[in-house]
Amino acid sequence: MKLRFHNAKILTMENENIIDGELHTDGGKISYVGEKTDNSGKFDREIDLNGDLIIPGFKDAHTHSAMTFLRSFADDLPLNDWLYNQVFPHEAKLTEDAIYVFTQLANMEYLTSGITSSFDMYFKLPAYSKANIDMGFRTVICGSINDFGGTVEGIEEEFNTYNSLHPLVSYQLGFHAEYTTKRETLEGLAKLSQKYKAPMYTHNSETKSEVEGCRERYGMTPTQLFNKLGMFEYGGGGFHCVWFDGRDMEIFRDKGLFMVTNPASNLKLASGIAPICEMKRHGMKNFAIGTDGAASNNCLDMFREMFLVTALQKYREDDAAACPAFDVLEMATKGGARAMGLFDCDVLAVGKFADFAVIDLSQPNMRPFHNLAKNLVYAGSKQNVKMTVVNGKILYENGEFTTVDKNEIYERAEKIAREICG
Amino acid sequence: MKLRFHNAKILTMENENIIDGELHTDGGKISYVGEKTDNSGKFDREIDLNGDLIIPGFKDAHTHSAMTFLRSFADDLPLNDWLYNQVFPHEAKLTEDAIYVFTQLANMEYLTSGITSSFDMYFKLPAYSKANIDMGFRTVICGSINDFGGTVEGIEEEFNTYNSLHPLVSYQLGFHAEYTTKRETLEGLAKLSQKYKAPMYTHNSETKSEVEGCRERYGMTPTQLFNKLGMFEYGGGGFHCVWFDGRDMEIFRDKGLFMVTNPASNLKLASGIAPICEMKRHGMKNFAIGTDGAASNNCLDMFREMFLVTALQKYREDDAAACPAFDVLEMATKGGARAMGLFDCDVLAVGKFADFAVIDLSQPNMRPFHNLAKNLVYAGSKQNVKMTVVNGKILYENGEFTTVDKNEIYERAEKIAREICG
Repeated sequence: MKLRFHNAKILTMENENIIDGELHTDGGKISYVGEKTDNSGKFDREIDLNGDLIIPGFKDAHTHSAMTFLRSFADDLPLNDWLYNQVFPHEAKLTEDAIYVFTQLANMEYLTSGITSSFDMYFKLPAYSKANIDMGFRTVICGSINDFGGTVEGIEEEFNTYNSLHPLVSYQLGFHAEYTTKRETLEGLAKLSQKYKAPMYTHNSETKSEVEGCRERYGMTPTQLFNKLGMFEYGGGGFHCVWFDGRDMEIFRDKGLFMVTNPASNLKLASGIAPICEMKRHGMKNFAIGTDGAASNNCLDMFREMFLVTALQKYREDDAAACPAFDVLEMATKGGARAMGLFDCDVLAVGKFADFAVIDLSQPNMRPFHNLAKNLVYAGSKQNVKMTVVNGKILYENGEFTTVDKNEIYERAEKIAREICG
Repeated sequence: MKLRFHNAKILTMENENIIDGELHTDGGKISYVGEKTDNSGKFDREIDLNGDLIIPGFKDAHTHSAMTFLRSFADDLPLNDWLYNQVFPHEAKLTEDAIYVFTQLANMEYLTSGITSSFDMYFKLPAYSKANIDMGFRTVICGSINDFGGTVEGIEEEFNTYNSLHPLVSYQLGFHAEYTTKRETLEGLAKLSQKYKAPMYTHNSETKSEVEGCRERYGMTPTQLFNKLGMFEYGGGGFHCVWFDGRDMEIFRDKGLFMVTNPASNLKLASGIAPICEMKRHGMKNFAIGTDGAASNNCLDMFREMFLVTALQKYREDDAAACPAFDVLEMATKGGARAMGLFDCDVLAVGKFADFAVIDLSQPNMRPFHNLAKNLVYAGSKQNVKMTVVNGKILYENGEFTTVDKNEIYERAEKIAREICG
């Protein structure tokens, strides 16, 4: 399939410039980005974008997709009550079919927000990966072993299975968190990382009490522990990273680790505001953004996250100049792709995967055109997503999903939600 | 014009219940809300909502609409640099025509977010009111006198003029802020309030330095000063109210004043997080939500504001149970209406004005249906606004504006923005 998107503005994210021109795809890849061509007639479909904006797809660099089943079910509760009395007991009832349906529901929502891939940590991976493959959505699975489920051998098997299953699916080593995973398992994972020369990811320092608990158990922070155990010899990253100290930041800097921030979830669960500007002052350079799951956020919307990233830093730093818009856009696109190991999904250039979104500029929130990148970060909304393309295939266009029957998903989702939650 | 919206879910905001039924309008008013009827055939138009949700329109209880002309022009700057070097010099170039066009641009954006009325503080009121009347949008003008423009006599004249100009326009007494308005003027305004038995509104305690300055000048906070001068004998309210002390909260409680919060603007300009839960503990009961202007926010979106109101309180209180969703929905609808003096725009009931929005539930972020009010506050987006109705007239439907030519507005807005900002 060859597509031509012409009469477009294009923000490639290779730099801050906006090109007036066109983008072509050939199969899953980008075959041309640049000025207007006279190549009409050589494509399966040619789409006149009427001046709308093409950007690299957003990367949701930390999420639990199928948690859409609990959206708005148990909010406004203290964290422990929420987790132990609402989340865990209901998760125990999830079937393969439930995972499939609620993953597709999440993917639909990603598409409405211009998100083209997810870095997902959940379970029942056969159903999860099938839901993505069937829809044509790109996902990176993150290992989620902890003391309640999974083994290091199981993680190794998953690593090999899901890195060779399908071009849209890949797998990164990971585990749930320090506070749910015993030392022996952490040591086994460190060896696995070194065996495969593979990066390692986990929830890290999401809450103050998590860090305090780790200090009591090990006399050091989770980051310092993981580093000491040799988990980061081949890179990786942490999700949340709200309660970092200076030494944690230096480790992340020295090992080139990715800090994946989840601002909406961190506010809504009263976890805190991550010190992103302080991390930058410590020399950290690798940042990405995730939504976390719909049970804690409760929506899967990169526009809301982007605004929160910058606005919360401005608040935290007491400086309206902190964390400028283009930096945030980089985190949400390039940074996310690289955090997930999707090095060919980062920018719009020939040979890169054709994972992108078309932003409707014919909406009042995008006017006037003083600065389109700022309009996106400070004023953008799902309402502006006209089209989302993954691997050269249009999955979402003018409010419709091309690879799933939305009403069927909604009906199945309601039925299963009733069965699980009563 | 008589309209019938049937096959709907209806959240009237009289209570938390959701009705399955229909809503009828007759002219600008609601003539029926309740269960299914067999009244087909008696209307100018009958709309099958296919189960979508009708809610009272959101009220943007503090904004500067025409500041859309500066959207994304001067962000990421320290507050003083932004205000004195970017906002003021460019505002000085605004013509009546510019105010008209950028007000209509803002109103279009309000409509995309289900907002049916604005409480606006700006200038060039003839052009401003005409822009609203021509579009069919409801607005309440707030007086904006300060030492740089306007007189008490001028405010009195505006009060009389704009409270009798047109059914869609009303006017409340107000002034810019303590730090921009000399005592003599404040005293004159207090007398005016008492003469007309009218409430009084102003920017109040937006920044820490504003309150510190007032303490230096008067030995008390702005709220205490205004109260001492007799400005609140007939009610009123304050915009922002970030830096309140206990005594300020007691005054607001005792006088029944409205606290209008602007969380996105307060974060983005690094002003702070308003202590809403603490205010409630002090007995304050009247709250509303505003977007502030697009130069500081940068978008006019009640969904983003609602999420911020609750999420920032959860963060500030270190309690995920703080500020539950339905309370926020009340602030954004009923609370806003009452803050603005629009007592017949607060809930959906017979005899109230037909100001409402239709929420598209056939979007992934609204599924499953565990709790629709929470879905709105925690997961809602402009993408979910299918229709916005003001005074019984559909102004926005399926992405199209019925009373303005959007392309004409965009073209005029771009041209004027270039002329003013270069």
